Amino acid sequence: MNEIKIFAPATVANVACGFDVLGFCLDSVGDVMVIRKTNQKGIKISRIEGFDLPYEAELNVAGVSALAMYKTVHVDYGFEIEIYKNIKPGSGIGSSAASAIGSVFGMNELLGRPFNKTELAQFAMKGEALASRCDHADNVAAAVFGGFTLVKSLSPLEILEIPSPDNLYVTIIHPQIEIKTSESRAMLPKEVKLQDAITQWANFGSLIHSLHTNNYELMKKSLHDVIIEPYRSKLIPHYNEVKKEALNAGALGSGISGSGPSVFSLCKGVETANKVRDAIIKTYSKTGIEFDIHVSRINTEGVKVLDHKLE
Amino acid sequence: MNEIKIFAPATVANVACGFDVLGFCLDSVGDVMVIRKTNQKGIKISRIEGFDLPYEAELNVAGVSALAMYKTVHVDYGFEIEIYKNIKPGSGIGSSAASAIGSVFGMNELLGRPFNKTELAQFAMKGEALASRCDHADNVAAAVFGGFTLVKSLSPLEILEIPSPDNLYVTIIHPQIEIKTSESRAMLPKEVKLQDAITQWANFGSLIHSLHTNNYELMKKSLHDVIIEPYRSKLIPHYNEVKKEALNAGALGSGISGSGPSVFSLCKGVETANKVRDAIIKTYSKTGIEFDIHVSRINTEGVKVLDHKLE
Repeated sequence: MNEIKIFAPATVANVACGFDVLGFCLDSVGDVMVIRKTNQKGIKISRIEGFDLPYEAELNVAGVSALAMYKTVHVDYGFEIEIYKNIKPGSGIGSSAASAIGSVFGMNELLGRPFNKTELAQFAMKGEALASRCDHADNVAAAVFGGFTLVKSLSPLEILEIPSPDNLYVTIIHPQIEIKTSESRAMLPKEVKLQDAITQWANFGSLIHSLHTNNYELMKKSLHDVIIEPYRSKLIPHYNEVKKEALNAGALGSGISGSGPSVFSLCKGVETANKVRDAIIKTYSKTGIEFDIHVSRINTEGVKVLDHKLE
Repeated sequence: MNEIKIFAPATVANVACGFDVLGFCLDSVGDVMVIRKTNQKGIKISRIEGFDLPYEAELNVAGVSALAMYKTVHVDYGFEIEIYKNIKPGSGIGSSAASAIGSVFGMNELLGRPFNKTELAQFAMKGEALASRCDHADNVAAAVFGGFTLVKSLSPLEILEIPSPDNLYVTIIHPQIEIKTSESRAMLPKEVKLQDAITQWANFGSLIHSLHTNNYELMKKSLHDVIIEPYRSKLIPHYNEVKKEALNAGALGSGISGSGPSVFSLCKGVETANKVRDAIIKTYSKTGIEFDIHVSRINTEGVKVLDHKLE
């Protein structure tokens, strides 16, 4: 095998009460990447479509993660990477994580799978760090493992796979506005009330329990973020209206995806997710702000091979 | 049936990262209570052995919870309560919760079980409030449901039953010192660092996951409290030594039981729990402070009937 085509999914991080630790994976939105062995050693980005991103491997998240892996293997060939980008950078649904995991997942396949999923996430974090200027693994964890993932710790990197009901869907709106990472980060409080922190971990523990027990009612009661949402939601125009409409239309819970501006709504069943989509479209169409909206099943597989060519 | 003898178990609240929300139930330590129908209406405490506690129903936690239930039922008889107290008040293993749940559990049996477990916990909280001067349900939840319980919310009271491995044991030391509730409460920080709160909910989510998946290794990695323990452990003499010895002897994790002074150590298997007990005895014997120490299986049944007499 000397060439592989892969699907690198979009992901949602900072899932409500699971801020900074819980993520999940989408399957209707993602990038396509082609990874190819080359006679020339090193990592080369040979093609980028969809968005304007740097071709220099050291400046490209897919390149940086690929280089991190490449340095640890001793092979007499190199890799070239084609990126067909569908996830808009800065949309808050793991655009950089998809690129970062895609290249190392594809290389790992071509190398005969020397690395496990956690190791792939570790390489991908190097790419993520280029994009976000800090270490976090919520998106890469969900992209590589699929389903819901809990990043228990970063050092050592420990990722837990949390089961979820088959019938869980998400509706996700991406308002076409830009939120500066610096601004979004500056909004975070340094300290929080103990009572709020207790509420948050009660909700988070309950959410994990609800995912284990397929308890949608409990999921609904647990999908609350009393710590971060009150701050960051201010950066997303009409956030409260979107959330209200989604809940009225039957969503289990809504929250900010990553650091925004995308907003996710988890739903029981695709019919409800479609209703939630329609309700959000109706209300957001009035705002004059352009937006994309997607309905997706929770993708339990994660990053995957679409096609490969034998030598 | 006009008389019932019941076992009201001791419990551990504030389980490490699950401060204020997670509790579990013991089965080798608990009170025995006898509840009897009487011709005279009302609630009467007729006998107390073991510790010196008030006989006036309005001033006794078992009496207060019993009165709370009695007011909601319309019967032409009353109840008298005998309390054979084994759990020392103020030991931090749910002494008041045992009394509070024991009376209402027994009455419910004699009444033909009109109330469910959550309703029993609600009555028992009235008794708890007399003892602790604040609403909390961690101990009564664990005492009535058994096993591990997560108090998701107080209003409305919502208690989740978290599964746990069969082979989970606890070693619990009770140093014979008094910690004033007011002092213990005054030590709690009003605000906590966001980063610490995130660590706490990552650990708590992981702990819930570990209990669902019988993952002892993960339990060990998750049983940490970075928020409360650094403050409250100062009130417990030789706390750090106890914890160190317990972990060295193989405990999965140790923490303050309730607001202390008891210290619990969760262990895989009774052999390890016994080793942990021996290691703690060895180190605590040198301190000159008197102590009790117990090894217990996790009691998955909770409060239970020991015996009853028919009319």
